[in-house]
Amino acid sequence: MSLPNHFELLATDGPARTGRLTTPHGVVRTPAFMPVGTAGAMKGVHWREVREAGADIVLGNTYHLMLRPGAERIAALGGLQKFTGWQGPMLTDSGGFQVMSLSELRKLSENAVTFRSHIDGTKIELSPERSIEVQRLLGSDIAMQMDECVRLPAERDDIERAMRLSLRWAERSKRAFETAPDGYMLFGIVQGGDIVELRQLSARGLIDIGFHGYAVGGLAVGEPQSVMLAMVEEVTPILPQDRPRYLMGVGTPDDLVEGIARGIDMFDCVMPTRNGRHGVAFTRFGPINLRNARHAEDPRPLDEESSWPSARNTSRAYLHHLVKSGETLGAMLLSEINIAYYQQLMQDIRNAISNRGFTDFRERVRAGWAGGDIAPI
Amino acid sequence: MSLPNHFELLATDGPARTGRLTTPHGVVRTPAFMPVGTAGAMKGVHWREVREAGADIVLGNTYHLMLRPGAERIAALGGLQKFTGWQGPMLTDSGGFQVMSLSELRKLSENAVTFRSHIDGTKIELSPERSIEVQRLLGSDIAMQMDECVRLPAERDDIERAMRLSLRWAERSKRAFETAPDGYMLFGIVQGGDIVELRQLSARGLIDIGFHGYAVGGLAVGEPQSVMLAMVEEVTPILPQDRPRYLMGVGTPDDLVEGIARGIDMFDCVMPTRNGRHGVAFTRFGPINLRNARHAEDPRPLDEESSWPSARNTSRAYLHHLVKSGETLGAMLLSEINIAYYQQLMQDIRNAISNRGFTDFRERVRAGWAGGDIAPI
Repeated sequence: MSLPNHFELLATDGPARTGRLTTPHGVVRTPAFMPVGTAGAMKGVHWREVREAGADIVLGNTYHLMLRPGAERIAALGGLQKFTGWQGPMLTDSGGFQVMSLSELRKLSENAVTFRSHIDGTKIELSPERSIEVQRLLGSDIAMQMDECVRLPAERDDIERAMRLSLRWAERSKRAFETAPDGYMLFGIVQGGDIVELRQLSARGLIDIGFHGYAVGGLAVGEPQSVMLAMVEEVTPILPQDRPRYLMGVGTPDDLVEGIARGIDMFDCVMPTRNGRHGVAFTRFGPINLRNARHAEDPRPLDEESSWPSARNTSRAYLHHLVKSGETLGAMLLSEINIAYYQQLMQDIRNAISNRGFTDFRERVRAGWAGGDIAPI
Repeated sequence: MSLPNHFELLATDGPARTGRLTTPHGVVRTPAFMPVGTAGAMKGVHWREVREAGADIVLGNTYHLMLRPGAERIAALGGLQKFTGWQGPMLTDSGGFQVMSLSELRKLSENAVTFRSHIDGTKIELSPERSIEVQRLLGSDIAMQMDECVRLPAERDDIERAMRLSLRWAERSKRAFETAPDGYMLFGIVQGGDIVELRQLSARGLIDIGFHGYAVGGLAVGEPQSVMLAMVEEVTPILPQDRPRYLMGVGTPDDLVEGIARGIDMFDCVMPTRNGRHGVAFTRFGPINLRNARHAEDPRPLDEESSWPSARNTSRAYLHHLVKSGETLGAMLLSEINIAYYQQLMQDIRNAISNRGFTDFRERVRAGWAGGDIAPI
């Protein structure tokens, strides 16, 4: 069954695409990178800075939010946007992935996964239907089907079993989503590990069910980048041209460029904030580790041509000092600098695709990363 | 010997005063509250927010900065303002207080205090001359003399010995400061514990030496508020009317109001940021502990009439969730809210003194605090 389409393709350049996805809380320009606000907050970054950095949409983690403060409480408080103060589109995952990675004593059945909360040990059951209910209570603009994600490497039998279970859960998720108001979206998730045939089966199965958009899941879970990109390359040609495509949990700036080169429209990753907390800045010179003593007396900023003020105005010596001293401000500055870098990269890519200059841009930006940091003073 | 005066008294209302202190990096409106950026950073708050909150001047801790990144390095990088990006006046303490409270194996002599760094164990000697040298290297607008501060309660002999040593160190600090360029300032520190006679002796001794301004030190170190205020009340009438007066390490909003009522012009304290990190907001209803379960489902902001956006727009439920979840954003929001509350309080007090309405204001604001928080929903 076909669902209304809220995605508009504006331009393509080879497989690379740029478009607009219209959600109840605003428009998302694609390709889009979604910073991750796990528990209803971006670690170390004010929402106003996420917005100023150019993010149109952010991701919230259903698993964390359903445990604390609870989906019903967030609904009573008017939904995620009202609760957090982020006045824009939000995508939520299904919670399934984090049940598998964070909770204890989990048990998977055809019907649901049961687990104990990592916060207080409460026993909880998460079914595809409950996942959709929780995401509806949160008020997320884009909900994800519940799926089972297998870490790689894995046996073909395990991958196939999880893929087929995920397809059955996709159907149940879709049925559970039928009562959602117009404008809200549900994405299906292609599984199938690193096996092309299973990926294709999964994609075709999801298309038969019909979703507002399609995600490629179960990647960036331990496999080399080449395997991830090979899977993306096999899947995107099968997916409907007119629907948005989302590569989940990815990735480095290079992963993003290469994903876009293979027809991906959306990404999410904790990397900008997590690496920021660990003293690493993403720049056009590649990643820079501010812990390194070479920065201790360097009065130069990370990138004097950056469009983001703190990347342009803060000295490497100061960032080095903050990181070495464990000052929160170091994590705050590097997290906002990284989010801004990712967003600027997306904006540059959208422009490049619009101007049919994506191939040149891709070469140029990769050459910059390969060239490495500016010479020490 | 009299020093040039950079303080202009604009209005008084009883002992309460409002004025302007002109420093090499800008004007400080008094009464002034100085947020504390211990190691060259405000914990959880961007410098741009400190500025927007209305702070004219901040305090840096000489002890921390001399250990890491080091005074000579900061000097090579252009001084504290250039290093940190805080483009305004900075006051630095002498380092002596923190040597006593943080370092190990310290030994006090007539000449200096020697200690081991709490960071790497290096043996360091801090004399009054070296303290001034360090503060000059940091480029602080207002340097403090090195003194010895005794925790209360203490024996009279100990208090007197420390007070007399502090006076001799005051003379040495002043001599060491003679080569400082015009516009930079050195403050003497009144010691004498909780003994009026010693406080008066100390104040008169400092006036004989002559400083740009006078601090009252060795308070807020364990004694009741009444003792602290009694000491202030005895000391301020002795101090020159035309020089700024600074009550060190103080305090709660009520301490500030009461200090100003006794003729104090400047304050510093870690309380706004430290209590913010511990989940406490300062408001016109008094301190509010956001950990308390009463806020869990409260959609109302801390204070809908606050001039600070995040105090006016962020729900108590969200702040409660952030604090309970240990999200950095909770500490960030409460720290900026608290700094803004302190700064707004100072602005209101400056206005009240200018309009000769300080007594009314003092009664009104204290009644607000005594009235407590708004009723639960």
